[in-house]
Amino acid sequence: MDSMTLIAVASIITAGLTTGIGCLGPALGEGRAVAQALTALAQQPDASMTITRTLFVGVAMIESTAIYCFVLSMILLFANPFWTHAVGQAAGQ
Amino acid sequence: MDSMTLIAVASIITAGLTTGIGCLGPALGEGRAVAQALTALAQQPDASMTITRTLFVGVAMIESTAIYCFVLSMILLFANPFWTHAVGQAAGQ
Amino acid sequence: MDSMTLIAVASIITAGLTTGIGCLGPALGEGRAVAQALTALAQQPDASMTITRTLFVGVAMIESTAIYCFVLSMILLFANPFWTHAVGQAAGQ
Amino acid sequence: MDSMTLIAVASIITAGLTTGIGCLGPALGEGRAVAQALTALAQQPDASMTITRTLFVGVAMIESTAIYCFVLSMILLFANPFWTHAVGQAAGQ
Amino acid sequence: MDSMTLIAVASIITAGLTTGIGCLGPALGEGRAVAQALTALAQQPDASMTITRTLFVGVAMIESTAIYCFVLSMILLFANPFWTHAVGQAAGQ
Amino acid sequence: MDSMTLIAVASIITAGLTTGIGCLGPALGEGRAVAQALTALAQQPDASMTITRTLFVGVAMIESTAIYCFVLSMILLFANPFWTHAVGQAAGQ
Amino acid sequence: MDSMTLIAVASIITAGLTTGIGCLGPALGEGRAVAQALTALAQQPDASMTITRTLFVGVAMIESTAIYCFVLSMILLFANPFWTHAVGQAAGQ
Amino acid sequence: MDSMTLIAVASIITAGLTTGIGCLGPALGEGRAVAQALTALAQQPDASMTITRTLFVGVAMIESTAIYCFVLSMILLFANPFWTHAVGQAAGQ
Amino acid sequence: MDSMTLIAVASIITAGLTTGIGCLGPALGEGRAVAQALTALAQQPDASMTITRTLFVGVAMIESTAIYCFVLSMILLFANPFWTHAVGQAAGQ
Amino acid sequence: MDSMTLIAVASIITAGLTTGIGCLGPALGEGRAVAQALTALAQQPDASMTITRTLFVGVAMIESTAIYCFVLSMILLFANPFWTHAVGQAAGQ
Amino acid sequence: MDSMTLIAVASIITAGLTTGIGCLGPALGEGRAVAQALTALAQQPDASMTITRTLFVGVAMIESTAIYCFVLSMILLFANPFWTHAVGQAAGQ
Amino acid sequence: MDSMTLIAVASIITAGLTTGIGCLGPALGEGRAVAQALTALAQQPDASMTITRTLFVGVAMIESTAIYCFVLSMILLFANPFWTHAVGQAAGQ
Amino acid sequence: MDSMTLIAVASIITAGLTTGIGCLGPALGEGRAVAQALTALAQQPDASMTITRTLFVGVAMIESTAIYCFVLSMILLFANPFWTHAVGQAAGQ
Amino acid sequence: MDSMTLIAVASIITAGLTTGIGCLGPALGEGRAVAQALTALAQQPDASMTITRTLFVGVAMIESTAIYCFVLSMILLFANPFWTHAVGQAAGQ
Repeated sequence: MDSMTLIAVASIITAGLTTGIGCLGPALGEGRAVAQALTALAQQPDASMTITRTLFVGVAMIESTAIYCFVLSMILLFANPFWTHAVGQAAGQ
Repeated sequence: MDSMTLIAVASIITAGLTTGIGCLGPALGEGRAVAQALTALAQQPDASMTITRTLFVGVAMIESTAIYCFVLSMILLFANPFWTHAVGQAAGQ
Repeated sequence: MDSMTLIAVASIITAGLTTGIGCLGPALGEGRAVAQALTALAQQPDASMTITRTLFVGVAMIESTAIYCFVLSMILLFANPFWTHAVGQAAGQ
Repeated sequence: MDSMTLIAVASIITAGLTTGIGCLGPALGEGRAVAQALTALAQQPDASMTITRTLFVGVAMIESTAIYCFVLSMILLFANPFWTHAVGQAAGQ
Repeated sequence: MDSMTLIAVASIITAGLTTGIGCLGPALGEGRAVAQALTALAQQPDASMTITRTLFVGVAMIESTAIYCFVLSMILLFANPFWTHAVGQAAGQ
Repeated sequence: MDSMTLIAVASIITAGLTTGIGCLGPALGEGRAVAQALTALAQQPDASMTITRTLFVGVAMIESTAIYCFVLSMILLFANPFWTHAVGQAAGQ
Repeated sequence: MDSMTLIAVASIITAGLTTGIGCLGPALGEGRAVAQALTALAQQPDASMTITRTLFVGVAMIESTAIYCFVLSMILLFANPFWTHAVGQAAGQ
Repeated sequence: MDSMTLIAVASIITAGLTTGIGCLGPALGEGRAVAQALTALAQQPDASMTITRTLFVGVAMIESTAIYCFVLSMILLFANPFWTHAVGQAAGQ
Repeated sequence: MDSMTLIAVASIITAGLTTGIGCLGPALGEGRAVAQALTALAQQPDASMTITRTLFVGVAMIESTAIYCFVLSMILLFANPFWTHAVGQAAGQ
Repeated sequence: MDSMTLIAVASIITAGLTTGIGCLGPALGEGRAVAQALTALAQQPDASMTITRTLFVGVAMIESTAIYCFVLSMILLFANPFWTHAVGQAAGQ
Repeated sequence: MDSMTLIAVASIITAGLTTGIGCLGPALGEGRAVAQALTALAQQPDASMTITRTLFVGVAMIESTAIYCFVLSMILLFANPFWTHAVGQAAGQ
Repeated sequence: MDSMTLIAVASIITAGLTTGIGCLGPALGEGRAVAQALTALAQQPDASMTITRTLFVGVAMIESTAIYCFVLSMILLFANPFWTHAVGQAAGQ
Repeated sequence: MDSMTLIAVASIITAGLTTGIGCLGPALGEGRAVAQALTALAQQPDASMTITRTLFVGVAMIESTAIYCFVLSMILLFANPFWTHAVGQAAGQ
Repeated sequence: MDSMTLIAVASIITAGLTTGIGCLGPALGEGRAVAQALTALAQQPDASMTITRTLFVGVAMIESTAIYCFVLSMILLFANPFWTHAVGQAAGQ
């Protein structure tokens, strides 16, 4: 059962680090975008429609990189092809 | 029981680091957004409705990346598929 | 008792590092928000109500990421599912 | 089965780190672009068509680097040539 | 007595690092807040009541993250559940 | 089969890291270029033709460095000369 | 006497690092606060009472985080519960 | 075959890292040059000929450092003198 | 004499690093404070009494963190409780 | 053949890292010089002759440091004195 | 003589690193103070007496942290209590 | 031949790293000097003689530090006293 | 002769690193001071006497920290007390 | 001959790193000084005599720290006291 444990441990550690590291960038990027949006709103309140819309589209694209990381972590935990293969082999043994 | 211990140790360390690292980004990003919101409020008090609303939506999206990390840590501690598998095997042995 | 010791050591180290690292971000973020709030107050004393309210809501949200880390550390120290399992097994042995 | 485990573990760790690290840059870059777009919108609301179009083309090109990383991770998990070779050899053994 | 020594060593090192690292953020954050408060006071001496009050509430919240770290260190040194368990077992042996 | 496994593992890890690290720079550089383009557009809307054209040529050159990295990763995964040699030797053995 | 040596070594190293690292933040934070206080004094000499008072209260709070670290180091050196326990056991042996 | 494997592994890892690291600098440098070119264009549209020409010559020189790295990686993969020597020796053995 | 050597080596290394690292912060902080004091003096020569007094009090507080580190190093070298204990035991043996 | 392999591996890794690291500086330095040249051109189009000439001389000097690194890598790969010596000895053996 | 060698090696390395690292901060801090003093002199030549005096007192205090490190290194090299003890024991043996 | 191999490997790695790291500083420093020269030229075209002369003298002094590193690498590769000694001893053996 | 070799190796490495690291700070600090002196001279040519004098005194104090490091390295190489002791013991043996 | 090889290897590596690292600071510091000198020249062409003279004296002092490092490297390579001692002992053996 040694080989399965190794795969499990690697999956657990990788899943955590991927989401942990991968959320730094989006959080900082979104923070910057939101902060600048507020400055823009204060400077030009009349353009609030355009600013808000552009902000949300932009933040959604930044969020997408965080979601890539989260999806990858979920795949590693719940749909890991290497784990499936190892479990299948252990069952068929 | 060696293999289970390894999975447990990896889960504990990863759960902690994921939340620990993953909270740096959101905290800094939110700090920036809130700080800029206050500057905007001081500059344009009349637009406080729009500014506050945009701030809360934006902060909520930033917070979401922190929540991804926290959810992942909770999954690793309380609904870890690899641990469940190992416990099942140990029971059926 | 080797396996239990390992789990205990990993829990202790992780609990400390999670809180230690996880408090850097909120402290810096809150420091920025508070600093900017004071600038805003000096610039627009009449809007002190709105500024103070927004500040406290914002700081509370930033504080929440520090609390995620603290809660996780407490779970690792006092409600660790892996430790409970190990103690249960050692008792039932 | 040792050699297959090694390849699996390397693929898992690399897949995670590639996406985790590779999303930092795009997220920060997009955050900067979106933030500046909002400033530009506040400064020149009449040019909102040109600004928004340029923003989306630019963000799409930045996003492409994040997608390179994600694609590579997917290849490593689901279409890994070294794994295929190893599985084929193990089957033909 | 090996297992107890390990727990003791891990507790000592973690207690120190948690407080050591965890005090960086609050000290820097408070330094920023206090510095900005003084600028604000120089700019708007009439609002000194509001500024001072907001400063103290804000600094108190930042200090709270330092206190989380200090409390955790104290728990690890004087109310460590894993140490208590190990001492209990050694006594009952 | 030891030597082939080593080459495979090294190729997998290197392919991932090359793309992961190599995408940081282009993403940040493009983010900066796009951000400045938007400022330029807001400042001088009449020159939008020249600005947009220069932007796209420039971004294409920056993107080229990301493509070098991606191409290298693809070569390492699908046209690795050392792997081909090792497979050939293993077949001819 | 092996276990006691380990505890002693860990205590010595941790005591030093905790104070060493933990003094970076307060020193930088206080430097910033004092520097800004001097700017404020030069800008608004009439408010020197309020500025000086706020400075000293703020610096005292920042100093408190340095004192947490120093206290912890003193506890580790002169009132270490794990060392006391080990000495007690060695005496009672 | 041990010595050849070592050379192959070293070549693979070095080829990847050289291109990965070596593309950071050019990408950032070109990003800066392109960004400043756009500002210059917006500021002085009449000088667009000189600016664009200088930009392309400059970017070409920056790109050259990226190409040094890529060329070196290609040499290591496809014209590695040490590998050639090792293959020659293995053949002549 | 092995255990005493270990304690001595740990004390030497820790004493050096504590002072070495712990002097970075105060030196930088004091440099900032002094630099700003000179700017303030140039801006408002009439307030030189208040500025100089505040500077010296502030620098004294920053210096205090450097002194904590130096005192700790001296304790580790000349009044180390663990070393005293070890010497006492070696003498009484 | 062990000693030759070691020299070969060291030469390969060093050649790559030297060029990889050594290209960071020139790329960033040239990026800065080119960017500033464009600003200068926009500010003073009449001095474009002097500016362009100075730029090219300056960039050539910066490029020279990149060329030092590339030359060193080429020497290590194709005219390595230690490798020549080792091959000579192996031939004369 | 093994234990004495270890103490000697640790003392040598620590003495060097303490002074090496500990001189970074004071050098940077003094550089900042001197630089600002020159700006202040240029801005307010009439106050050159006060500025110069404050500069020298301030630089002397910053220098003191460098001297702490140098003194510690000298103690470790020429008045090391642990070395004295070891030499004494070796002599009395 | 073991000892000669070690010296050769150390010389190769050191030669590469010395030039690789040692070229970072000069490249960045020259980039800064050249960039500022262009700004100065644009600002004061009449002083172009003095500016260009000062620039070239300054850049030559900065380049000298890169040449120190390159010379050292050449000494290590082609006039290494330790290698000469080892070859001499091996010949005279 | 093992113990002497260890002391020699430690002295060599420490001597180099102490000077290498310890020269970073003074070089940067002096660069800053000299740069600011030139700005001050350009701004207030009449005060060139005071500025130049203050600059040289200041630079001399910064240089002193570099000289501490160089002196320490010379002591380690040519007047190392531990080496003297070891040579003495080897001679008297 | 083991002990001589160790000393040789340590000397080679240290010589390289000392010069490599020790040239970073002077190069950056000189770059800053030269850059500021050019700005000063452009701003005050009449003071070019004083500026140039101060620049050269200042740069010479910064260069001195690079020369300390280069001298140390030369001592380690060509006048190493430990190497001389080891060669003497090997000859007298």
